[in-house]
Amino acid sequence: MQDTPANQVDQQANALQRMLQPNSIAIVGASSDLNKVSGRPLKYLLEKGYKGAIYPINPKAKDIAGVAAVPDIASLPDGVDLAVVVLPAEQIEATVIELAKKKVPVAVVFASGFGEMGAEGKTMEASLQQAAQKAGIRILGPNCLGLFNAFNRAIATFSQYADGEVNAGPVGFISQSGAFGTAICALSRARQMGFGFFVNTGNEVDISVMELMQEMLALPALKVCSGYLEGLNNGHALAAVAEQAMQLDKPIVLTKVGRFGAGARAAASHTGSLAGEDRVFDGLVQQKGIVRARNEEHMLDIVEVLLHCERPTGKNLAIITQSGGAGVLLADRAEEVGLNVPALGETTRKAIAQVIPGFGATGNPVDVTAQFVAQPSILTESTIIALNDSDIDVGVVWLQLMHGFTDKLLEVFAEIKSRAKKPFVVVWVSASEKAIAGLRERGIVVFRNGDAAVDALAAVAQYAQARRRWQADFHSSQKQANVGRQQRPTGVEQGKPVPTVQALALLKAFNIHSAQAELVTSAEAAVEAAKRVAPSGSVALKIESMDVLHKTDVGGVALNLSSDDAVRQAFLDITQRVTKAKPEARQDGILVQAMSSGRVEFILGLKHDPVFGMVIMMGLGGVWIEVLKDVVFCQCPVTPAEAADALGRLKGAALLEAFRGQPAVNKEALIQTIVSLSQLGKACEDWLSELDLNPILLSDKGLVAVDVAMVA
Amino acid sequence: MQDTPANQVDQQANALQRMLQPNSIAIVGASSDLNKVSGRPLKYLLEKGYKGAIYPINPKAKDIAGVAAVPDIASLPDGVDLAVVVLPAEQIEATVIELAKKKVPVAVVFASGFGEMGAEGKTMEASLQQAAQKAGIRILGPNCLGLFNAFNRAIATFSQYADGEVNAGPVGFISQSGAFGTAICALSRARQMGFGFFVNTGNEVDISVMELMQEMLALPALKVCSGYLEGLNNGHALAAVAEQAMQLDKPIVLTKVGRFGAGARAAASHTGSLAGEDRVFDGLVQQKGIVRARNEEHMLDIVEVLLHCERPTGKNLAIITQSGGAGVLLADRAEEVGLNVPALGETTRKAIAQVIPGFGATGNPVDVTAQFVAQPSILTESTIIALNDSDIDVGVVWLQLMHGFTDKLLEVFAEIKSRAKKPFVVVWVSASEKAIAGLRERGIVVFRNGDAAVDALAAVAQYAQARRRWQADFHSSQKQANVGRQQRPTGVEQGKPVPTVQALALLKAFNIHSAQAELVTSAEAAVEAAKRVAPSGSVALKIESMDVLHKTDVGGVALNLSSDDAVRQAFLDITQRVTKAKPEARQDGILVQAMSSGRVEFILGLKHDPVFGMVIMMGLGGVWIEVLKDVVFCQCPVTPAEAADALGRLKGAALLEAFRGQPAVNKEALIQTIVSLSQLGKACEDWLSELDLNPILLSDKGLVAVDVAMVA
Repeated sequence: MQDTPANQVDQQANALQRMLQPNSIAIVGASSDLNKVSGRPLKYLLEKGYKGAIYPINPKAKDIAGVAAVPDIASLPDGVDLAVVVLPAEQIEATVIELAKKKVPVAVVFASGFGEMGAEGKTMEASLQQAAQKAGIRILGPNCLGLFNAFNRAIATFSQYADGEVNAGPVGFISQSGAFGTAICALSRARQMGFGFFVNTGNEVDISVMELMQEMLALPALKVCSGYLEGLNNGHALAAVAEQAMQLDKPIVLTKVGRFGAGARAAASHTGSLAGEDRVFDGLVQQKGIVRARNEEHMLDIVEVLLHCERPTGKNLAIITQSGGAGVLLADRAEEVGLNVPALGETTRKAIAQVIPGFGATGNPVDVTAQFVAQPSILTESTIIALNDSDIDVGVVWLQLMHGFTDKLLEVFAEIKSRAKKPFVVVWVSASEKAIAGLRERGIVVFRNGDAAVDALAAVAQYAQARRRWQADFHSSQKQANVGRQQRPTGVEQGKPVPTVQALALLKAFNIHSAQAELVTSAEAAVEAAKRVAPSGSVALKIESMDVLHKTDVGGVALNLSSDDAVRQAFLDITQRVTKAKPEARQDGILVQAMSSGRVEFILGLKHDPVFGMVIMMGLGGVWIEVLKDVVFCQCPVTPAEAADALGRLKGAALLEAFRGQPAVNKEALIQTIVSLSQLGKACEDWLSELDLNPILLSDKGLVAVDVAMVA
Repeated sequence: MQDTPANQVDQQANALQRMLQPNSIAIVGASSDLNKVSGRPLKYLLEKGYKGAIYPINPKAKDIAGVAAVPDIASLPDGVDLAVVVLPAEQIEATVIELAKKKVPVAVVFASGFGEMGAEGKTMEASLQQAAQKAGIRILGPNCLGLFNAFNRAIATFSQYADGEVNAGPVGFISQSGAFGTAICALSRARQMGFGFFVNTGNEVDISVMELMQEMLALPALKVCSGYLEGLNNGHALAAVAEQAMQLDKPIVLTKVGRFGAGARAAASHTGSLAGEDRVFDGLVQQKGIVRARNEEHMLDIVEVLLHCERPTGKNLAIITQSGGAGVLLADRAEEVGLNVPALGETTRKAIAQVIPGFGATGNPVDVTAQFVAQPSILTESTIIALNDSDIDVGVVWLQLMHGFTDKLLEVFAEIKSRAKKPFVVVWVSASEKAIAGLRERGIVVFRNGDAAVDALAAVAQYAQARRRWQADFHSSQKQANVGRQQRPTGVEQGKPVPTVQALALLKAFNIHSAQAELVTSAEAAVEAAKRVAPSGSVALKIESMDVLHKTDVGGVALNLSSDDAVRQAFLDITQRVTKAKPEARQDGILVQAMSSGRVEFILGLKHDPVFGMVIMMGLGGVWIEVLKDVVFCQCPVTPAEAADALGRLKGAALLEAFRGQPAVNKEALIQTIVSLSQLGKACEDWLSELDLNPILLSDKGLVAVDVAMVA
């Protein structure tokens, strides 16, 4: 094989696929003591029956555990797919360069002592990064546990998880934490749901979670990808990964810590400081249909449902129980997490009444009573009937104990599963191990607690809804809207405010409706401008100065001016007040703007996020943003369906609807403005730092942006 | 023993204690087939080693399982403590009357077929209730599983729970559901934490949860009382039970279903329709220091912590982990449920740095790294040091797997337990059964998941805080405030509005500050009144009519009147408008009231709740109540400490503090008004149906109630 540039590109492009499905593995520094960290990868590969070639590299041993050892990297044959490096930190860089020379595409580096160890370690890590990049080899880690492919038994890890059975399931799992990742693998195994692939990324000097996610989604053996994240350095690829997941209908389920980071706590009212990383992440995953789990158990619950249940076509839950109270507990939780528990239709109720005892309940929750033990058809038929109700999308069956009837009940559930046309799960409180295992064997998802079941169903219903939205969007023209690049306005420096008139022009170019305005530099010009911008209404005057960020703080604003005299006087007053408050500020003139009205104050903002690129923030003004921090973020650009969905996630969403006798605001106009602003953000992402439209006044007629602040 | 009235009272007073700790049990209708429902109580009593006298009543058998049978109730000896009636529904009433004749104080009725079976059953239930009351016997049930006392082995139930081991723990448990209650008993057993007492109340024709709670709290063997509730018919005793629990420091932990009932969902803005039963219940339990659990697992988690940990003296949590990410997950949840995770002090951090590896973290969360496996003192010492920090009240230690080190780690935790001066719990993800059991044996509470641990600690910290508040209150004079009875104002009919002038007088009598007002019946009188109520300000005019509930709807209000002419004209306009809008309405005059101002609109309401008696509702006006339904309920009367705590639970509480450059409102005045209004409610509870102060305007100076609506 010739070392042409084309080959090198190809080698790199396939690097991660070769890492995930290696036909040959070299272990650099393999110990002959198989219980050491440096011995365990070989032990596991042998124990678990890896069929590919193994090359333990050890200058002193001829063979290890019967596998022929290789004295050094140079002696490796060509075409090795993966190197596991079990040497200490100080030997890593040189080793990696040697591996690159042998065209090994990826090195897994276990060693700690890098970025996590302070300044010196950080320097060493940066050096490793550069060296690897230059040499053309990809790095997993350092400070990681490695990875495994449970299908082909490539157990390239020293994780204690591999001490036990490594059963392969159609789930990929990427963890930034080694210790917690291992525990999650073990939890998954305990559910008889092993991970097919596991990768621990450690310090992520090179290979990132997002990149791995893309590779895992491409693997035909995997149906679901999951991840445990502690933080993202590289979120630019999020939208692309999410798009790929949607196209393949392979859900991504993530647990990310830091839901309440200091960033999110910061109390402030403008876009910048509200954009705590986690809030942005949370908004983006919801926008893109990635499922976010609250913690490890929630994640595994969701994954189990995704694996074994059809996707529900809506959020309407049927609850079938043997205890009225348990039904209400389930309904409580359903409502809390966004599922509906609609009353069953009259026909359904009558049909259920035919099969359950008189003291049961046919509504929703359905209470079949404990009689079903004597007569299992009660449970079978009432569940099938409830699921068949046209208003129902998904079901949950709740029962407890019944240890003496496990076999009979396993048959009942198997029959329900075979006949049901809609997804359902079982909650079995105080179940026997036999009952749990028996249901799992039959492909039926079972929980020991109602909340866990409802939480998982809610997340899955949310995913299904996001995918329906994506499918609708996929065929809409807006989705494909090709947003061109927009240059920085002439004369504007990076990091400086954009003059209002130029900012307004940019908004206009994207069809975002602002209050009409003119910049003037004399009182008489202000009077004339007022006649033009508001022929029959009143105007506001606002100081225009590159040096003034908060206009009201320096007395730079006058509102509700409805006569020539008032405008003239306001011009003079503002000039004087600003001069007094901030004598050094350059005054570029005064903006004359038509006064506007609306029922609801709204705020939109753009911000260039270092991790996720250009994002848009939306929220209601006043206490909603200031006290309740009620904002939602999306990545730019946003489709109309994504915008509508994001608006629905605002706590104050009800204020957009008809309220206290006043008509609903024009939501279509608001959605279109969000879409347009997000396209503006995308078009300007090379230079735009921040843009605030605060407030935007919404009415039933439409909307108008009253104030704009834009920073290049 | 003579049947004097005094004896009868005594017999009834002791009835429930005799039921809970019976020295003799009769089984009416005992079957000789011990596997039947009617045979199981005898089987369980024998199997579990009940030492008291057992009297199976069966006319056909001489003995059952070696116990001499009694042919009929009349043949029972005197002084039997408890009768378990296992006969069908139609025989119950007659049986109960016979038992009463033999002075048996309590009958446990298993039979279903009563109130749960529709109209006929309800009639039979009412009849049973009357007959029992008349005969002087208490009833548990009907339609219940009975009860057990695991200490003296009085297993008066047919619950399948008793098929297994019935280990006695210092926890009482009362369940309204038989099926779910049994499952919860089994869950408790699986935690090696058996319930000492279990009672299933079934249809509650007589003995109620609150009454049982009182009796259980009095039992020296019990430290904690728990309950599973589906609904309360009799909540009047709630305050008394809570007071008793506080005095004894025996926490009550309840799971009550219906957190999101239709009542709570009803969208409306006035007190009446917001007082959905569950919101009232939720407010009251928080006011009174009863712990409310979200579901059965949460309840058992809380009970376990209460049993084995000292009460934390605050809400500051130290997190010690072997995984940075896990620490953040725990911190996330802590913040979500109201615990703090403060940074550890400088001295503490330095001391921890001495014992953990350099790549660990000394902040909070503390990350001791996986090194502690090799050197257990790392975990021991860092946990002890963190707990010793003066800012820390309680700790959680998180670890995972470590199956090979279970014995060593059990020693480590035992040492921590012996040395720690503050409470802590362990989270062990993917723990072995041996690890879990070993920790429990050592009296250390262990969870398999971080959220569950944090949720339980938060509830326990909340309880401890409520008890500190109660202790402070207990010695305050306000607590003892003896509120006299207040008669219904003369001339006011039950169910009718109270004229505003009389309502205002009542408020004044309780020192509740309202805007000054006079009732007038002519325009000139209005002008004169305006001069008196607002000598230098403006006034509002409001129609006064028993037939008009919503004054603005009929044009019955005019605001901001600042001249004689304006007042005169407004009087005429209002009279005309109301006459036109509601010609049949009796016009009692027009109220002239001083206009008031304030920064924040607040709402207070009183409502006579059928279950809980007089309750007070508080909340912020505007979107807070209308969109966010952000209100809190308390039972009347309310102490100042309870009022302050309730205000803190409002989502919009921040608006009461200094906000956007404006000073905080006068919270002391608001608290005093809440206390006073609650005393008014208590004083008027014989006749007052509803009272709304909406709005009350709050400022830094004080407050003023602007509008009052009172219904007798």
